[in-house]
Amino acid sequence: MAEPLFDKIALIGIGLIGSSLARKIRRETLARHVAISTRSAETLARARELDLGDSYTTDAAEAARDADLVIVSVPVGSSGAVAQEIAPALKKGAILTDVGSTKASVIAQMAPHVPEGVHFIPGHPLAGTEKSGPDSGFAELFENRWCIFTPLPDTDPQALETLSAFWRRCGSNIDTMDAEHHDKTLAIVSHLPHIIAYNIVGTADDLETVTKSEVIKYSASGFRDFTRLAASDPTMWRDVCLHNKDAILEMLARFSEDLASLQRAIRWGEGDKLFDLFTRTRAVRRSIIEAGQDIDQPDFGRQAVEHPKA
Amino acid sequence: MAEPLFDKIALIGIGLIGSSLARKIRRETLARHVAISTRSAETLARARELDLGDSYTTDAAEAARDADLVIVSVPVGSSGAVAQEIAPALKKGAILTDVGSTKASVIAQMAPHVPEGVHFIPGHPLAGTEKSGPDSGFAELFENRWCIFTPLPDTDPQALETLSAFWRRCGSNIDTMDAEHHDKTLAIVSHLPHIIAYNIVGTADDLETVTKSEVIKYSASGFRDFTRLAASDPTMWRDVCLHNKDAILEMLARFSEDLASLQRAIRWGEGDKLFDLFTRTRAVRRSIIEAGQDIDQPDFGRQAVEHPKA
Repeated sequence: MAEPLFDKIALIGIGLIGSSLARKIRRETLARHVAISTRSAETLARARELDLGDSYTTDAAEAARDADLVIVSVPVGSSGAVAQEIAPALKKGAILTDVGSTKASVIAQMAPHVPEGVHFIPGHPLAGTEKSGPDSGFAELFENRWCIFTPLPDTDPQALETLSAFWRRCGSNIDTMDAEHHDKTLAIVSHLPHIIAYNIVGTADDLETVTKSEVIKYSASGFRDFTRLAASDPTMWRDVCLHNKDAILEMLARFSEDLASLQRAIRWGEGDKLFDLFTRTRAVRRSIIEAGQDIDQPDFGRQAVEHPKA
Repeated sequence: MAEPLFDKIALIGIGLIGSSLARKIRRETLARHVAISTRSAETLARARELDLGDSYTTDAAEAARDADLVIVSVPVGSSGAVAQEIAPALKKGAILTDVGSTKASVIAQMAPHVPEGVHFIPGHPLAGTEKSGPDSGFAELFENRWCIFTPLPDTDPQALETLSAFWRRCGSNIDTMDAEHHDKTLAIVSHLPHIIAYNIVGTADDLETVTKSEVIKYSASGFRDFTRLAASDPTMWRDVCLHNKDAILEMLARFSEDLASLQRAIRWGEGDKLFDLFTRTRAVRRSIIEAGQDIDQPDFGRQAVEHPKA
């Protein structure tokens, strides 16, 4: 068995991401001690029942004290408050990172509180499901997924390498980029898809001519695909919308412009234009499957789960 | 083993739907003879290699001759031409049905060609995957899915019951409604989702600030969910857009209106409004899972396929 990478890791927040990390850290023995902290006493009790760590506290500073690695996994709107709370407890030489879906805002919120001698490295593992809470995590969540770091100009290369080694042991591939580019990229690959999914499910829920029960019954003809993203954690996604506003509004504007053009093609019966777009988009899925970022099974493999012998 | 329901079934078109029917008919012995017809000699040869039927022809009329049940499974834009072609060959008392995703247009195209004494019952099985062609079918495709009939005022109840019995044997649940309501319902549960998916994949494909390879790499954070629908058959979906124009344009207008309102909430930082929408949409997914229209596994069960022991 490999030597643990850290003596003590503190997990601040124990939802889907935090609890998946806890399970992986334990399975691979990546630390000698895992300290778990979350604001909610109820969630903390559940984490303890699930035996996710070695110590439990609702006091984030207590968990962070003497930790070699502190991972903040909270909705991005709470990053600043958490940083302020744990700052006095952070030891010199510790690595402080986060898993937030927006990076410029997290840096703006956390960096001012980070004491000298602490290595603050903003991070974002691109992994998740529509579930939330400590029960929803699993050790394989990060396998073959990307983890993006957005280092600051003064980030210590050695600390970055140590943190990268940790995420590689979690199964991730590592990329680095600046925070602004991260936020633009995630606006299109993640934030816009979630917003569109929430929106279409809302539109369907509001119709008068088609009943709610019809929408549910007939959802397998396409609609249900959107309901997965639209079932994601509301607090997390409210915060993402508020904290990556500019990039999201830019992508929304482009999407709406393209949709207006598509709508016009439908109105005027421009079949060739429709056919060309519908052909071009097919190639994108093939590339995603080739890149190992989705499974090579029809219907996301639902079929294989429902009818294993099919 | 139950008695075959029909002596001869003709399948006109042998793509995803046609070939799934062929497999199911054979597995359950729902007919003594299955005649397969498709326009493309290449596709027909493939159907023969796959041993999907008992006879093969590129002449739709020849396949339809003496059939007790004729199922037209072609892009909706070709319904009229097929009806015209097979009409002279249809025997008295035969049931003629289709599987098209739009119903008012299919009725307008096919009904004028249907000879007296032939029971024309428009139908639509709400089942499919993003794959197309005779290789993509499987016998379980219709299990626990809905098949909607939109009978005409003079539809014979006995013929409708016979056709319903056939689809129930294929695993489907049966509903009936008028064509106009079908087209509005499908516009929201199927057509709009596909159009939105095609559109967002197109938008992402066109960006200058985020590269195509970044979109592919990081797609697991949400985008990939849309690429499945956007990989669907371009001919089929071009025809759907052209043949359910009014209902689709109405749903697109509602969607865009809601999106503009959501965009405004993001711009003005209306967190409560976002939170309320994101909470309401969660309930819709729960209802879909309770109705047995999606699997009760995170991430559409991709996880279960990738990491069976997780």
